[in-house]
Amino acid sequence: MLEKKNILLKIEYDGTGYHGWQRQPGQSTVQGEIEKALNFLLKEDVSINGTSRTDAGVHALMQCASFESYCRIPPDNLKRAMNNILPDSIRILQAVEKDKDFHARFSSKGKNYIYKLRIGPYNLFKRNYCYHVGDYLDCQAMALAAKFLVGTYDFAAFQAAGGTPRQTTVRTIKEAYISKDDKNPEEIIISIRGDGFLYNMVRIIAGSLVEVGLNKMEACRMKDIIDSKDRSQAGHTAPPQGLYLKEIYYE
Amino acid sequence: MLEKKNILLKIEYDGTGYHGWQRQPGQSTVQGEIEKALNFLLKEDVSINGTSRTDAGVHALMQCASFESYCRIPPDNLKRAMNNILPDSIRILQAVEKDKDFHARFSSKGKNYIYKLRIGPYNLFKRNYCYHVGDYLDCQAMALAAKFLVGTYDFAAFQAAGGTPRQTTVRTIKEAYISKDDKNPEEIIISIRGDGFLYNMVRIIAGSLVEVGLNKMEACRMKDIIDSKDRSQAGHTAPPQGLYLKEIYYE
Repeated sequence: MLEKKNILLKIEYDGTGYHGWQRQPGQSTVQGEIEKALNFLLKEDVSINGTSRTDAGVHALMQCASFESYCRIPPDNLKRAMNNILPDSIRILQAVEKDKDFHARFSSKGKNYIYKLRIGPYNLFKRNYCYHVGDYLDCQAMALAAKFLVGTYDFAAFQAAGGTPRQTTVRTIKEAYISKDDKNPEEIIISIRGDGFLYNMVRIIAGSLVEVGLNKMEACRMKDIIDSKDRSQAGHTAPPQGLYLKEIYYE
Repeated sequence: MLEKKNILLKIEYDGTGYHGWQRQPGQSTVQGEIEKALNFLLKEDVSINGTSRTDAGVHALMQCASFESYCRIPPDNLKRAMNNILPDSIRILQAVEKDKDFHARFSSKGKNYIYKLRIGPYNLFKRNYCYHVGDYLDCQAMALAAKFLVGTYDFAAFQAAGGTPRQTTVRTIKEAYISKDDKNPEEIIISIRGDGFLYNMVRIIAGSLVEVGLNKMEACRMKDIIDSKDRSQAGHTAPPQGLYLKEIYYE
């Protein structure tokens, strides 16, 4: 008897114009487009499990999703076939067979997000790919503020209402830093790696760090914000278009 | 009696997703969006004259358009009001009152287009803003080929069928060069300045220069192509998303 295979897809996408990752009736979503491509190619009703339900406008340099299928197409051929029919804003980077018990979301050990900020004159062509924040950011203050985030804390202050209810708001941030490329001095990148993130957590962290960078908030306030567990103490939610899901870690 | 004023708009736009510049019933176009904003603000049926009818997907760092109106709003305020209601892919850079006899198209003395090429790994996020051509381009050969274009010639070989009929296919190219920014070695820019351009002329020139850069065509063939006046002798038409209208010159 034919057994189902467990396939992992690594996916890159430009979230501009999509109503986010998650399938929604009557809306164009990344999950919806990928499932449409799979159903067409496999003649099977396939449902994929994505690691992260990115919001509308959020991008992915590497999202993961797994699915089970009777598919006999070698994964590499499946990847090529999918890329031929997917919209050019979504690209399968890799398709690979995994063990039966692998699940793109539940097997994930952590994720890395980056958030792209831009200083200097407004650039219309970058509007969907970063957050324009003005002419100057104090990156040293931001770097100091970011350090307060590293560790295992209750991050309730950095959680927006409206997400899936979670058992706990305790998360571990393993790394949080600010980087700037000398070749591209107008771009400032926040990088955050952790075991998991609450709803809008990275965007609220980015908004808070921007307020620190604009000298509207002191760097050491980050500690108090965490301690408060109060969303109203943290900064604004930075817009989705600066956020990129960069990597997902498995064992 | 109230007299009409002649207003010049300088406009920047991301052509992605528009059916080009020119107003078309039932289609989203840049001219259409700007006229919609003007009609709303001025309560007047305004028709604007753009300098260049850019194709679908082509961008503008500076397009010009002029129109006549009874508008008493100071041009700078009009600019701000327009930017408040225009889609974020279109931005008015300047609005200024001109003499009665000024016309954005007929008064133009020349234009500068740039064409952005990209070498190296495919970047999904740049797909609407450049032409990915592979891993390597011989920029020296391209620079040599570009030199053959400078001068007053019959450029019939670089004209696509389907444009507005023109009295003559003779045009003067004043400058054509290739540039590369050390900070961004994956991007190669073709810059072409001339008194006017035929339909798809810059894109056919860009396609021909790419063929030279890929060593599929010899640089000195450019001269023969011009002499042939035969479209089939020139290279392919480079895709629209690499093309940017950069500047328009007036007296």
